[in-house]
Amino acid sequence: MSLIVQKFGGTSVADPERIAAVADHIARTRKQGHGVVVAVSAMGKSTDDLIRLANEVASNPGGREMDMLLTAGERISMALLSMAIIERGIPAVSFTGSQAGIVTDSAHGKAKILEIKADRLQEALDEGQVCIVAGFQGVSTGRDITTLGRGGSDTTAVALAAALRADVCEIYTDVSGVYSADPRICPRARRLTEVSFDEMLEMAATGGRVLALRSVEFARRYNVPLHVRSSFTWEPGTWVRDLGEDRNMEEAVVTGVTHDASEAKLTITDVPDRPGIAALVFRSLASAGVNVDMIVQNVSHSSLTDISFTVPSDEAAKAEAVVVDQLGTIGADGVTVDSDIARVSIIGAGMKSHPGVAATMFETLADNGLNIDMISTSTIRTSCVVRRDDVERAVRSLHTAFGLDA
Amino acid sequence: MSLIVQKFGGTSVADPERIAAVADHIARTRKQGHGVVVAVSAMGKSTDDLIRLANEVASNPGGREMDMLLTAGERISMALLSMAIIERGIPAVSFTGSQAGIVTDSAHGKAKILEIKADRLQEALDEGQVCIVAGFQGVSTGRDITTLGRGGSDTTAVALAAALRADVCEIYTDVSGVYSADPRICPRARRLTEVSFDEMLEMAATGGRVLALRSVEFARRYNVPLHVRSSFTWEPGTWVRDLGEDRNMEEAVVTGVTHDASEAKLTITDVPDRPGIAALVFRSLASAGVNVDMIVQNVSHSSLTDISFTVPSDEAAKAEAVVVDQLGTIGADGVTVDSDIARVSIIGAGMKSHPGVAATMFETLADNGLNIDMISTSTIRTSCVVRRDDVERAVRSLHTAFGLDA
Repeated sequence: MSLIVQKFGGTSVADPERIAAVADHIARTRKQGHGVVVAVSAMGKSTDDLIRLANEVASNPGGREMDMLLTAGERISMALLSMAIIERGIPAVSFTGSQAGIVTDSAHGKAKILEIKADRLQEALDEGQVCIVAGFQGVSTGRDITTLGRGGSDTTAVALAAALRADVCEIYTDVSGVYSADPRICPRARRLTEVSFDEMLEMAATGGRVLALRSVEFARRYNVPLHVRSSFTWEPGTWVRDLGEDRNMEEAVVTGVTHDASEAKLTITDVPDRPGIAALVFRSLASAGVNVDMIVQNVSHSSLTDISFTVPSDEAAKAEAVVVDQLGTIGADGVTVDSDIARVSIIGAGMKSHPGVAATMFETLADNGLNIDMISTSTIRTSCVVRRDDVERAVRSLHTAFGLDA
Repeated sequence: MSLIVQKFGGTSVADPERIAAVADHIARTRKQGHGVVVAVSAMGKSTDDLIRLANEVASNPGGREMDMLLTAGERISMALLSMAIIERGIPAVSFTGSQAGIVTDSAHGKAKILEIKADRLQEALDEGQVCIVAGFQGVSTGRDITTLGRGGSDTTAVALAAALRADVCEIYTDVSGVYSADPRICPRARRLTEVSFDEMLEMAATGGRVLALRSVEFARRYNVPLHVRSSFTWEPGTWVRDLGEDRNMEEAVVTGVTHDASEAKLTITDVPDRPGIAALVFRSLASAGVNVDMIVQNVSHSSLTDISFTVPSDEAAKAEAVVVDQLGTIGADGVTVDSDIARVSIIGAGMKSHPGVAATMFETLADNGLNIDMISTSTIRTSCVVRRDDVERAVRSLHTAFGLDA
């Protein structure tokens, strides 16, 4: 008998029929003899509905009250799911984040888990109960209700799996696993049987939407094997785990191609090539709460250089204002904003030991007439910024070039 | 500066506009220098929506999970109300029943308050915060979420007022106070300026729907003055408090006329007039969970008697089955069920010192051609069961006869 943590997102419990299907699956898992802990999100779009209500009563709702409000969503789904499981003859009990001992810091809306006091869950498990835990929420050390922010339910599931030393954390979602590219734009994309934590991190960071970055970081740190699979077909999906060092000997060099069209590019032109300039710019952006992603500084020509960086599109205007404020101080010429960009990335642990992968990427894009605006790399990833209109073609051509087509 | 507890029911916070109006009023009260604690119900019919969802996923949802589910409703309304108050520049903070220290027994769906640990509320009040507390809910000594059952938010408000030694507990509702009769059927009904706890208890027990019986019992026990008033007009309403002994010297003998058409009458015929028979019958009914209200046993004729009693209409079939089971044991002839009845009651503390009030009631009904099926009395109330079709006419004629018409 093993201990399994299962996470169900909003689409998996969107209505009573979906809740019944999920309850059937949980009952099935329990009857196989496994201990089961479930982390569940709010039903369908109910969190959006609550946010809309909040915006109708207050122009800028505070974090504490917003968290109090939003946590009502999981309370509903977890109670309904628990009832549905009991209806199937399996003992089940639901727990709020607070009751499950999920202790966080006080950063409302984006709280971090500090500790999980799992004794109450462990007790229920020892009695043979299925434990249904509200995803996305916890209680602060100051006894206030908190939420974990985007992808919070994934993080709840992984943290519970780590605290309870579960054998696996199954992430159920509306797709059947992690794909070598987004199947909606790349019809020949394949479902991956397994990916390493490092690859999954790079994928999540560069546009893969299946898993939230934070939950993968958590899983890697505590070495919790993840199994990403569908709550509609229930077929086996993709394992995300520590694959060791030598696994890529016989494998494809590139595991997947991701893309992200949600960013804009800013370029500060004719920046004096002096120490401290970049620090000044990016400290100001950080202070303004702008999330900077890629940063590229070209080599200088005649002691002036260009600094380009990408930010989420909806933060581009704020970023531009911050930079304009700094132009005099840094002595730069100006700043341009380009919203018509997208990023395409290739990811693969094999890139570490295979030189020339980046070159192949650039050649492939060039052969397809696709211009490259920016380049950035990590040990297992190479990303290029291209024109937004070109990104789907870029994904497909790279998917083919690296032998990933099904 | 006084401390005011305000309770807002579902219709008072049914939508964002209503929440804004309530927030305005709370802000106004706070600006007058009063400390304010608010108990709030779930928005409009949202509790009914949650019950419907539960019935879609489970045929007989368990009490613990049902309470977990239903308490989501107040969580939403209290967070929204708190945000709306903060929006008006008044510091406010919301508390779940658990956070407010409302400790109950473990009877899910109808929990009783054991204790209020009000230190967290007191702390917030001392800081000048408006405290918004979820009505209807608490936490059991076993750390499970509980609900208080029908009228629970009223009980929450009164219990908070008692624990915090508030000067008044204001119950805001969709009518403007307690009336001398139901204005929908008795157009000449008057709003009462004040009624005693005892009168209010009898009114609540005999069909007055403005206040839940439990909350009035609680208010009387802890001597918490109640002010029942409208959240639509905000005008002063009806005070419910200890009026002392001599208050009725110059007042009307009868304070109000109530009616209740929600019950059915059962009559057990030809019951042997022996000790212990009534005990046997009503013990069996209690064990079956039937709520018996009025009981009348007629004087016996030839050592046989009839026992009549009323129960909520939807429990009549169950009550009949229980009695049929007992017929052999008690040696009675049979049982009849009459669903076409209604009860009309006159209530007034002055009845204690004014003989002949009951006789006036019977004469009035007779003069209007209304037949009386059953009679029962307390020191400050006389109730008659009449035909259901006759009850509105009965209310109006009694209202006139006792000089209550506006």
